[in-house]
Amino acid sequence: MNSKLIIWTLDWVPDGPRGFVRDLRLRWAAAEAGIPYEVRTVAFEGRETNHLDRQPFGQVPFLTDGDIKLFESGAILLHLARKSEALMPLDPVGAAETQQWVIAALNSIEMVTVPWWFLKMTGKEDNGLTNWMDQRLARIETILSERDWLAANRFTVADLLTADVLRVTDLRAHGHRPASEAYVERLTNRPAFRKVHAEQIAQFVAADETRQS
Amino acid sequence: MNSKLIIWTLDWVPDGPRGFVRDLRLRWAAAEAGIPYEVRTVAFEGRETNHLDRQPFGQVPFLTDGDIKLFESGAILLHLARKSEALMPLDPVGAAETQQWVIAALNSIEMVTVPWWFLKMTGKEDNGLTNWMDQRLARIETILSERDWLAANRFTVADLLTADVLRVTDLRAHGHRPASEAYVERLTNRPAFRKVHAEQIAQFVAADETRQS
Repeated sequence: MNSKLIIWTLDWVPDGPRGFVRDLRLRWAAAEAGIPYEVRTVAFEGRETNHLDRQPFGQVPFLTDGDIKLFESGAILLHLARKSEALMPLDPVGAAETQQWVIAALNSIEMVTVPWWFLKMTGKEDNGLTNWMDQRLARIETILSERDWLAANRFTVADLLTADVLRVTDLRAHGHRPASEAYVERLTNRPAFRKVHAEQIAQFVAADETRQS
Repeated sequence: MNSKLIIWTLDWVPDGPRGFVRDLRLRWAAAEAGIPYEVRTVAFEGRETNHLDRQPFGQVPFLTDGDIKLFESGAILLHLARKSEALMPLDPVGAAETQQWVIAALNSIEMVTVPWWFLKMTGKEDNGLTNWMDQRLARIETILSERDWLAANRFTVADLLTADVLRVTDLRAHGHRPASEAYVERLTNRPAFRKVHAEQIAQFVAADETRQS
């Protein structure tokens, strides 16, 4: 089964989320690892219900890898990480550390930053989650001021995910966080990120033209 | 390295969180798998800063497994799952499905239910996250009304985690969710859960006596 990875995303999104739709995490990991992939789409219109058989919460991305069908970008990153040492070291200690920081990005950082952002978008900027978010971001700032990479002293999929989580967060809003800003800057300057970021935006721009015609 | 697992938790907590501190997830997984463990503690007083070298957000649990030191209960569950087929099937498709639902519990369910609960605890019950939480719980209800287990047609660590996430959630608050309630009931009636739940409560009760003496 040497089938190509298929990364599924939406066929179009408005300007706001372009460059941020989470298929980017998967493209980025595949690009870092040199794993070929193709991108296929489901319709933006009706997305709440049109692909519930593949993603039970109506979201993207999801992945097809031969017999394996996966949703949840975090689970897919862990799946890809086991395919390539470019994403995660092979030794058990380094692999465990990488997975620990992947889960921390999802369950200790995003668990606060995503609901905070959601409440802010709905007009509640001072929303009761601000102190909690600031505490979490302060801890990350301390860690990133002491080392360059989260796990195993090298780039891993944990940095890829954490940088993606932090770049969506307004790091300057509630404090001075130079180490976190430098980390995001460094990670998003990697050639693989720049390539797939441009690729995602180009896909949605091309979809504008189809919608207008 | 056949060293026993060491599960780290707090030495005492007030009544409210007893039976819910997340070391329970680790004890439960170890009990299901028949893996021996011992429990060690860090101080409740000063927990915000007294063990940051082991858990950078000042939380529990964390694990020692020989050379491997891990925090994040989700990461530890995935680590334990790879030690025992009782927690996750060995076949790649079943294992991928299990990991997908572990991440879904952390990043699609808890990402909404935990901040919702946090805002409720601080006096904001109608807090802007309610509709989002209700949508997620409705999707889980549909899934659990169609099958008994989330992954691979059998009990896995994904069910253990999801049941733990859902039992903290007031499932009846915003809708009728009989399949989710039955699922939680069934999972929390497993002998391994009942054993470790009693064990955690007994530990904290015993700590009351030490504090009073």
